[in-house]
Amino acid sequence: HARGRKPWKLMLQIIKIAIITIQLVSFGLSNQMVVLFTEENLSTFKNLFLKDYDGDMDSYAVYRQADVYDHIDYILVQYGDLHSLTVGNQEYDKNYPMSVCQEFYKNSTISPGNETFDIDIHVINDCFNVYPMEHLTLRKALPHFKLHFKRMLSVKITFVLKAINLQTVRYREMPDCYDFTIIITFDNQVHSGRIKVDLESDVEINECRDLKVTGASARNIHPTVLFDCLVIITCIASFALCTRSVINGIQLQFEYTDYCKKHCGCQVPWSDRLEFLNGWYILIMVTDILNIIGSILKIEIQTKVLTNYDVCSIFLGTGTMFVWIGIIRYMGYFRKYNILILTMRAGFPNVIRFICCAGIIYMSYCFCGWIVLGPYHEKFRTLNMVSECLFSLINGDDMFATFLEMKQKSLLVWLFSRIYLYTFISLFIYMILNLFITIIADTYYTVKRQSGKPRSELQRFI
Amino acid sequence: HARGRKPWKLMLQIIKIAIITIQLVSFGLSNQMVVLFTEENLSTFKNLFLKDYDGDMDSYAVYRQADVYDHIDYILVQYGDLHSLTVGNQEYDKNYPMSVCQEFYKNSTISPGNETFDIDIHVINDCFNVYPMEHLTLRKALPHFKLHFKRMLSVKITFVLKAINLQTVRYREMPDCYDFTIIITFDNQVHSGRIKVDLESDVEINECRDLKVTGASARNIHPTVLFDCLVIITCIASFALCTRSVINGIQLQFEYTDYCKKHCGCQVPWSDRLEFLNGWYILIMVTDILNIIGSILKIEIQTKVLTNYDVCSIFLGTGTMFVWIGIIRYMGYFRKYNILILTMRAGFPNVIRFICCAGIIYMSYCFCGWIVLGPYHEKFRTLNMVSECLFSLINGDDMFATFLEMKQKSLLVWLFSRIYLYTFISLFIYMILNLFITIIADTYYTVKRQSGKPRSELQRFI
Amino acid sequence: HARGRKPWKLMLQIIKIAIITIQLVSFGLSNQMVVLFTEENLSTFKNLFLKDYDGDMDSYAVYRQADVYDHIDYILVQYGDLHSLTVGNQEYDKNYPMSVCQEFYKNSTISPGNETFDIDIHVINDCFNVYPMEHLTLRKALPHFKLHFKRMLSVKITFVLKAINLQTVRYREMPDCYDFTIIITFDNQVHSGRIKVDLESDVEINECRDLKVTGASARNIHPTVLFDCLVIITCIASFALCTRSVINGIQLQFEYTDYCKKHCGCQVPWSDRLEFLNGWYILIMVTDILNIIGSILKIEIQTKVLTNYDVCSIFLGTGTMFVWIGIIRYMGYFRKYNILILTMRAGFPNVIRFICCAGIIYMSYCFCGWIVLGPYHEKFRTLNMVSECLFSLINGDDMFATFLEMKQKSLLVWLFSRIYLYTFISLFIYMILNLFITIIADTYYTVKRQSGKPRSELQRFI
Amino acid sequence: HARGRKPWKLMLQIIKIAIITIQLVSFGLSNQMVVLFTEENLSTFKNLFLKDYDGDMDSYAVYRQADVYDHIDYILVQYGDLHSLTVGNQEYDKNYPMSVCQEFYKNSTISPGNETFDIDIHVINDCFNVYPMEHLTLRKALPHFKLHFKRMLSVKITFVLKAINLQTVRYREMPDCYDFTIIITFDNQVHSGRIKVDLESDVEINECRDLKVTGASARNIHPTVLFDCLVIITCIASFALCTRSVINGIQLQFEYTDYCKKHCGCQVPWSDRLEFLNGWYILIMVTDILNIIGSILKIEIQTKVLTNYDVCSIFLGTGTMFVWIGIIRYMGYFRKYNILILTMRAGFPNVIRFICCAGIIYMSYCFCGWIVLGPYHEKFRTLNMVSECLFSLINGDDMFATFLEMKQKSLLVWLFSRIYLYTFISLFIYMILNLFITIIADTYYTVKRQSGKPRSELQRFI
Repeated sequence: HARGRKPWKLMLQIIKIAIITIQLVSFGLSNQMVVLFTEENLSTFKNLFLKDYDGDMDSYAVYRQADVYDHIDYILVQYGDLHSLTVGNQEYDKNYPMSVCQEFYKNSTISPGNETFDIDIHVINDCFNVYPMEHLTLRKALPHFKLHFKRMLSVKITFVLKAINLQTVRYREMPDCYDFTIIITFDNQVHSGRIKVDLESDVEINECRDLKVTGASARNIHPTVLFDCLVIITCIASFALCTRSVINGIQLQFEYTDYCKKHCGCQVPWSDRLEFLNGWYILIMVTDILNIIGSILKIEIQTKVLTNYDVCSIFLGTGTMFVWIGIIRYMGYFRKYNILILTMRAGFPNVIRFICCAGIIYMSYCFCGWIVLGPYHEKFRTLNMVSECLFSLINGDDMFATFLEMKQKSLLVWLFSRIYLYTFISLFIYMILNLFITIIADTYYTVKRQSGKPRSELQRFI
Repeated sequence: HARGRKPWKLMLQIIKIAIITIQLVSFGLSNQMVVLFTEENLSTFKNLFLKDYDGDMDSYAVYRQADVYDHIDYILVQYGDLHSLTVGNQEYDKNYPMSVCQEFYKNSTISPGNETFDIDIHVINDCFNVYPMEHLTLRKALPHFKLHFKRMLSVKITFVLKAINLQTVRYREMPDCYDFTIIITFDNQVHSGRIKVDLESDVEINECRDLKVTGASARNIHPTVLFDCLVIITCIASFALCTRSVINGIQLQFEYTDYCKKHCGCQVPWSDRLEFLNGWYILIMVTDILNIIGSILKIEIQTKVLTNYDVCSIFLGTGTMFVWIGIIRYMGYFRKYNILILTMRAGFPNVIRFICCAGIIYMSYCFCGWIVLGPYHEKFRTLNMVSECLFSLINGDDMFATFLEMKQKSLLVWLFSRIYLYTFISLFIYMILNLFITIIADTYYTVKRQSGKPRSELQRFI
Repeated sequence: HARGRKPWKLMLQIIKIAIITIQLVSFGLSNQMVVLFTEENLSTFKNLFLKDYDGDMDSYAVYRQADVYDHIDYILVQYGDLHSLTVGNQEYDKNYPMSVCQEFYKNSTISPGNETFDIDIHVINDCFNVYPMEHLTLRKALPHFKLHFKRMLSVKITFVLKAINLQTVRYREMPDCYDFTIIITFDNQVHSGRIKVDLESDVEINECRDLKVTGASARNIHPTVLFDCLVIITCIASFALCTRSVINGIQLQFEYTDYCKKHCGCQVPWSDRLEFLNGWYILIMVTDILNIIGSILKIEIQTKVLTNYDVCSIFLGTGTMFVWIGIIRYMGYFRKYNILILTMRAGFPNVIRFICCAGIIYMSYCFCGWIVLGPYHEKFRTLNMVSECLFSLINGDDMFATFLEMKQKSLLVWLFSRIYLYTFISLFIYMILNLFITIIADTYYTVKRQSGKPRSELQRFI
Repeated sequence: HARGRKPWKLMLQIIKIAIITIQLVSFGLSNQMVVLFTEENLSTFKNLFLKDYDGDMDSYAVYRQADVYDHIDYILVQYGDLHSLTVGNQEYDKNYPMSVCQEFYKNSTISPGNETFDIDIHVINDCFNVYPMEHLTLRKALPHFKLHFKRMLSVKITFVLKAINLQTVRYREMPDCYDFTIIITFDNQVHSGRIKVDLESDVEINECRDLKVTGASARNIHPTVLFDCLVIITCIASFALCTRSVINGIQLQFEYTDYCKKHCGCQVPWSDRLEFLNGWYILIMVTDILNIIGSILKIEIQTKVLTNYDVCSIFLGTGTMFVWIGIIRYMGYFRKYNILILTMRAGFPNVIRFICCAGIIYMSYCFCGWIVLGPYHEKFRTLNMVSECLFSLINGDDMFATFLEMKQKSLLVWLFSRIYLYTFISLFIYMILNLFITIIADTYYTVKRQSGKPRSELQRFI
C-alpha cells in the first residue's frame, strides 16, 4: 500500500541517517580529545602525588603508621613544588587552598586485647587549610597534625588545579579551561590495618576568560550548532510525516472495525487491530524524539551551559542505534532478505519467552553461588558480579581461570564449587543454549512454509 | 485436577519465595562485612610480617640460608613493634605468646656428594615461646636458635592477635571481637633448596566481653532471629501441605491399581505408578527441609553458638536455588512456555545418557593427558586440573595459552601434546557437542508432535 | 566434459602448488632471520637508550621536568659510550651525527591560574647536532639547551647506527649491512603533564661494500632467483592454458545462444550464460597473476632493488592461499566430498546476505557503544576497537573482562553498559548466530535433495 | 552372536580396566614427586645462579659488556659459596669441575661503520675448568678470561650438582640420588646486542650407593614390580582371547565366501568381508600390546635400567586411554545408548571427510597469515603457531587479544590483517562449524531411521 508516496519519505530517512551519523562521529571525535586530556591529567596526578605509585591502584594501600604520615607529607611537598615539577601547565586555583581533613569517632577507648571498647559513634571532621609554598612539609604546614589511628575513619586531602587543553589549538578549535578538583582519600572505614589510598579527579570545563590565538582563525562554534539545528529540523519533519501515517493507520483501523461490524457482525480482535499500527513508524518516532533531545543537549554542551556529556551521549547514541536498525525495514522489500527478517521477528517472542524460563534457573544459580562461593572467590563477591561471571561462563569465556581462582580452604566448599560449576555449565551449554538453536530453526521453517500463503481476511481487506 | 485448592498453596509458595530470598540477601550482605574484615586483616598480616612481600604468594619463597634467618628475624621485630606499626586495632592476646617451632629429622648424615646418607625418620618438634616486647630481634629473643637446613622439615611461627570489627557500628550492629591465629610456615618438605613461605590466618568470632556504644541504639538481634523463625514456620507449613498431597497421590495410586486389577486384570507398570508421585512436590519438600536446617544453623550463628558459615550457606543457598527452580512449575501452566519446559524435561535423560558416553572418552583423555603431559604442563599436574582444563577447552576457553605453555623440552612429548590437543578438541567440539544439539532438536520436535495428543488410559482415568 | 585433456592441466596445477609452496616457505624462513635481527636490535636500543626501561613501552612516560633532562642526558651518555657498552656490533654512521630537536609554539604566555593565554600557533623546530664522543653529557654537548615545557610540543632525538647481520653466515648466506635510524620522541602534544617517550627504529638493508668470508662458499643468489623464474614460467603456462579454456567456454556460450534462438526461439538468461564461465578458471588466472607479480617483487628484493617486504609478501601470500583453495576443485570429483563443497557454495550467498542484515544491527551497536561507553572503557575508545571488541564478544571471547573493566564512575552509564552488553550478547549469540546454523542446515538439505536430479536443458545440451 | 562365552571375556576386560587404571594412577602419583623435586631444584638453581632473576626467563637477557662479566662473576661466586648459601642438600660432584666455555669465530674484523668485514667461519671453542672454593671470583679463577664480543657465539658454563630426594622417605620409599647437570648459556648467535641467558638442568636419577634409614621398613620395590607383572599377564590373556576371536572371524568369513560362491555365485564385496573383522577386538589387541610394552618399560624404570619416563608414559597413557574407550563397546548393548554410539561411528567418516575440505582452506590461511603477518604479530611467527592461533580463534578463544597485538607499523599490513581475521573467523565460525552441526544431525536422523530395519543378506547369514 501507499507506493506512490514512498520516495519522499525514503529520501528523508536516508538523509536523516547520513546527517545523524555525521553528527555522532564528529561529536565522538571531539569527545575523544576531552577524554584524552582528562585521562592523562588523572594519570599525571597519580604519578605526581602518590608516593611509590606503580600504575596499579587496586593494590595501592598503606599498612604502617609511619607510612601514612610519609604519604601525606609527600603530597604536601609535591603540591608545594608543583610549579617546578610538572611538565604540563597545571596551576593552583588561588581561591581554594588545599584542605586536609581527618574524620574520626568523637571519643573511643578500644582495647581488643581485653575484648572491651567504649565508642561514641558521632563523627568529628577536623579540617586544616594549607596554602601552597615551596618546600612545604607536613611538619612546617601543620605542626600539630596528628592521626588517631584507632578511631580514624578517613583522611581526605582536597585541592583544585587549573589547566588549559592546548591540544585543540592544532585542530583550529579554541582551547578550554579545566578545573580539576583532586581528592586523595585514605580510607580506614574497615579498621583492618589496611588503609586504602585513592585519588579521584572531578573535572569542570569552562571557557577561558581572556584568550588570544595568533596565526589561526577565531573560534568557530556556529557551523557545529547550525548542523545540530539541521538535525533537529530533519527529525521534526520525519516525526511529522510518521505521525500522519500513524494517524491514517488508526483511522483505517476504525473504518475496518465498522466495516467488520456491518458485514460480518464480528468483533475485530486486538491482534488484528494492532496490525494497522506499523511498528516501524513507532520506531522512527521514538528515534526522532531521542535525536531531538540529544541534539538540544549537544547544543547546550557546545555553548558551555551543560558540562555533563553522559546524558547527551546516551540520547544521541541510542537515537543513532535505532536509526540504523530502521534500515532493516527497507531490506525487507527484497524477497530473500525478507525471510531472514521475518524469522528474526517471529523468533523474538519465543526467544524472550525461553529467556524467562532459563532466567529463573539462572537466577537460582546466581543466588546460590553468591551465598556459598562469595567468601572464597573474587568473582562471586557481589550478586552483579556473579551474574556477569555466569553469563561469561555460558558463552564460553574465562572457564579455567574461574575454576582455578577458587580458594581451597574448605574442602566442603571446594567440592560444592566443582559440582556447582560443572552442573551449571553442562546444563546451560549442553541443554539450554541448544534449545535456542532449535527454537530458531523451528521458527525459520515455519516462516518459510507460511511465506507466500494468503494470511487472513484482514489482508484481503487491505 | 484439584483446581479449587490451588490458590492457597500458590500464595504460600509465593510468600515463601519472597521471604527466603530476603533472608538469603540479608544473610549475604551481613556475611560480606565479615569476609571483608577477615580478608583485609589477612592482607595486612602478609604486608606486616612477610619481608619483601609484593602481593604474590605463589612465588614467595626463600633460597638462601641467611635469608631464612632474616625472614624470621623480621617477623619477630614486626611482632614486637606491632603496637607502633599497625594502623588497625590489632593487639596481642596476653594468654598466647608467639611460638617458634622447628621440625627436623632426629638424626641424619646426608652427603649427596658421596651418594650416601644415614637418616632417622623420627621427627623432632623443637619449640620456643617468645613474649612480645619492643625492638625484639632473633638474637635477643632466641640466642641459641639454629636451623638444621639439611634435615629440617619446616619452621612454624604461630601467634594470636585480637581485633574488633568496628565497621559494623555504622550499620547499627554491635561490633564483634575477632581472634586471629596467624601461622607462618617455612616449608622445606621437598628438600629442594626452595623453602616456600606461607601465612595463614584462622579466625574465631566472639561476642566482646565489655562494650558500650554511645549515640546509637543497643544491639538488636531479635528481628533477624524472628525473621528466621518466620521462614522456618512457613517452610513447615509448606512441607505439611505437600506431604498431604503426596499421601493423597499415593492413595490414589493404590485405588488405581485396584481399579486396573478389577477392570482389565492387568498389572500397572512402575512408570505409570510413578506418575502419581508429583515430582514438584518432592522438590518442594526437599527445599523445605534444606531451608529449615539452614535457618536453624543461621540462628545458631547469630547467637554465636556456631562460627562456621560454610555449612549454613550451603543449606540456605541450595534451598533458595530449588525454591527458585520451583517457579518453573507455575510457568508450565502457560501453553507456549510449557513446550519448552517439557522439552527440557524430556531431553534431560537423553543428555545425561549421552554425557555418560562422552564422559568415558573424556575420562580416557584425562588419564592419558595427566600421565604424559603432567610433567611438562602446569595445567596437567593433577587429575582434577586436567579435567578442568579439558572441560574449559571444550567450551572454547583458554586454547592458545594451553598450546603455548607446553614445555618444548622433549620433541616426542611435544608432538604427542599437539596430536592430543588437536584430536581432543576436534572430536569434542565438532562431533560430541554437535550431537547434543541434535539430541535436543530431536526431543523438541518429538515433544511438539506429541503435545495435544491423548496419552494413555492412565490419563483417561484421571 | 573435456575428460581427455585433463591430466596435463592437473599435473601442471599439482607442480604449481608444490613449487609455489616451496617458494613461500623458503621466503618465509629467510624473512624470519631478518625479522629476528631487526626485533632484537630494537629491543637492544630500548634497553640501552631508555632510562629505567622495564620492557613495557605503553606505560613508559615521564612526569617531572628534571626527569626529562635526565632521560635526554642518559641517551647522550649511552650514545657516547656505545662502543664500550654494547655486546653487539652496532657502530655510528660517520655521516649522520645525532640530532636533538625541540618543537615548540613560537610565542606563548599561558597562565591557567588566571584562565588566560596568548598563543602563537606557529611551530618552531630547534635542532642541535651532537657528535659522538666518550663520556658525553647534556651539559657538555649542549650547554645552552633548555626545554620550554609549557609550549613544547615534542623533543626528537635522531641518530643512525650501522650493524651487520652476522647470523646468516652459519646458513651459508652472505651477511647484509643494516642501517638503523633510531628516533626517540618525547611527545607532549596533549600538554597534560605526561610526556610519552617512544623509541622507533627504521631499518634499511644494503649489501655490504667490502666483505670476505673464509671457510665457506661464496654467496649464491642464483639458485633462488632461478627458482623464482621457474615459478613465473609455470604460472605463465598455467595462465595460458586457463585463458584458452575460458575462451573456449565463451565461444561455446555463443553457440548455445544461437542454438537456443534457432530451436526454441527463447532468450538465454544471464545466469545460464554465466554457467559457461568456469569460476575455477578465473580463480586460477587471478592466482597466477598474483604469483607472477609476487615473484617479480621477490627477485627485486633478493637483488636489493627493493627493501620493503610487505607488498611482496601480500602478493605471494594471497597467491599461495588461492592456489591451495584451488585444490578443493579436484576434491569435488569425489561424490561424498562434492555435497559438502556444493553446500558451501550454495550457502555462501545466503550467509553473505544475512551478514548484511546482521551487520546493520552490529553497526548500530558499534556507534552507540563508541559514543556512550568510549570515555569509560578502554576497549571502546575508537570505532575500530569497538568493532573488534563486539566481534570478539559474539564469538565468546573476553566477556567477563569486558564487563569488569567498565569504570564505575557514573551510575547511569554503568547501568547503560550492562543493558547494552547483555542485550547485545543475547541478541547476537542466541538469535543471530543460531540463524546462521539454520541457514546452513537448510542449504545442506536443499543441496542433498537436488543432487542427482537433472538440472535443466542447459545440462542436456552439454 | 556368541552370548554364551561372553561373561568370561567381559570379566577379564573389567579386571583389566581396573588394574590398568590403578597402575596408571600409582605411576602418576610417584611421578609427581620426581617432577616436583626436579622442578623446584630448577627454580632453586635459577634463583641462586642468575643475577637479578625475577622469575621470568623470557625477558632475561643482558645488553651491556660489563653486565656479561658481572653475570659470569656472580655465577662463580655463588658456585664457590654454594655450601653456605643453599637451604637444600645440593653438593658438588667431585669428578666434574665447572667448565666455562667461549665459542667464537676464529678470526674476524668486523666494522659495520665502514660496511666491511672479514670473517673466518671456523668456530673456536675455548674452555677453562674451575674448581669450587670459597669466595671465588672471575678475577681470581680466570685472570686472563676475556670475551670477544664482536665474534662471540656463546658462553656456556656447565657444572654438576648432586642431591638426594629426601621427601620420599615420608612415603616409606627409599630416596634416590639425583645428578643435576646445569648448563648456563649466554647466547649471542644473532649478534644483535642482546645476549639471551638461559639455564637448563638435565637430571639423571641413580640409586644411592650407601644408605641407611632408621625407623622405617626397608625399600619395597617388589610389590610394584609384581603388580606390573600382573598387568602384563592379564594383557597377554586378553590378547590371546581376542586373537582367537579374530581368527574365528576370519575363518567364518572364508566360509561365508564359499557359501556365497556356491549358493548365489556372487563375489563377496570387501566391505562385507570386513564386517567379519570386529573392530573392537583389533582395538583391544592394540591396547594390550601398548600396555605390555608400557609395563615392561615401567619395570625397567623401577629397577633404574631406564631413566627416561616419556616413552613409558606415552605407552601407558595411550594404552589406558584405549582401554577406557573400549568400555563404550559394552554401552552399545543398551538400546538408547546404541543410537548415540552408532551416530558417532557413522558420522566419523563424514566429519573426517569434511575436515579434509576445511583443512585445505585452513592451510591456505595458515600460509598466507604466516608470510604476511609473521613479522608484525607474535602469534604468527612460526607456521606451527599460526596453526594453533587460528585453531584457537575458530573455537572462540583469544580473539580480541589477537586483534590488539597486531603492530600498527604498516597501514597496508594492518588493513590486510583486519580483512584476514574478519574473513577467516566469519568463514569458519559462521559457515564451516555450522556445516559440522548439519552433518552430525543428518547422520543422526539417518541412523535413527535405519536402526531396527534388517540390514542385508550378510546379517541373515549370521
